[in-house]
Amino acid sequence: MDLKSKIRSINDFPQEGIIFRDITTVLKDGEAFSYAIEEMHNACKEFEFDLICGPESRGFIFGTPISYIEKKGFIPIRKPGKLPAETISQEYDLEYGTSKLEIHKDAIKPGQRVIIVDDLLATGGTAEAIAKLVEKCGGVVAGFVFFIELEFLEGRQLLKDYDVVSIVKY
Amino acid sequence: MDLKSKIRSINDFPQEGIIFRDITTVLKDGEAFSYAIEEMHNACKEFEFDLICGPESRGFIFGTPISYIEKKGFIPIRKPGKLPAETISQEYDLEYGTSKLEIHKDAIKPGQRVIIVDDLLATGGTAEAIAKLVEKCGGVVAGFVFFIELEFLEGRQLLKDYDVVSIVKY
Repeated sequence: MDLKSKIRSINDFPQEGIIFRDITTVLKDGEAFSYAIEEMHNACKEFEFDLICGPESRGFIFGTPISYIEKKGFIPIRKPGKLPAETISQEYDLEYGTSKLEIHKDAIKPGQRVIIVDDLLATGGTAEAIAKLVEKCGGVVAGFVFFIELEFLEGRQLLKDYDVVSIVKY
Repeated sequence: MDLKSKIRSINDFPQEGIIFRDITTVLKDGEAFSYAIEEMHNACKEFEFDLICGPESRGFIFGTPISYIEKKGFIPIRKPGKLPAETISQEYDLEYGTSKLEIHKDAIKPGQRVIIVDDLLATGGTAEAIAKLVEKCGGVVAGFVFFIELEFLEGRQLLKDYDVVSIVKY
């Protein structure tokens, strides 16, 4: 299946000059979404892992079906104040200013191997922050699996110490 | 499996006097999460439906695995400004003030039957707003499936025109 043909491109969103790759047209097509999950699941099988981890909220969309298929736990990464128990946080740079992500301190047992799943690899800033959170918990990053990669933003540079797989490339 | 024993209760979150039912302890247990999804999927099978719909971000966690299993599309409901194409929005009341949710205008074809999936039925305000969004698109609400229901908040009152199923009740 040509998954790229299922992704809708929207010009000037969220700001002028940006072409936004809209995955909602993949999601609403049951065959396309299942196929996308199977491709990402196949990519995960390249790694030895114990857990899937993904950031809110589009990381949840691709991460939880893989967690379900593998019967391996899912660790949500959330924006500050959303996780109810004790957390560890990690700042990361945005184009303007910084932002912060959190993980439950007890989410990962030391030595557990974690695949980080998200919808999009852009500059790699968010992905790198998630890797740091996993490592701060004592986890090992087994690899990254993205649905889309924007190759011209060279996000792999920031993730050069990790294995990275993406399904659809622009 | 006793799913309730997998849910962590946290006192005074997000504010004093509230017992927060923390699903992250279910998610990180691969067997428990898969079992929860299977129970919710079984509940969905009581309805005739074409699509699964769920709100960000915990609705994505339970909705997308069911969408994957059924090979039926997933329609995300999001906070304002997150969906890139033309949207329809719906206000709803919070304890203090109001909030708003959005759906893509072209997400649902007229007459399509939609199951609304979320982690929690509390007062029912969010759930009712999602039903209105589905109906504004021309869709038919086939039913609601929740992981947890807080029965003492009587959310079913607000949803009395719909079929509602929940897996774990407090």
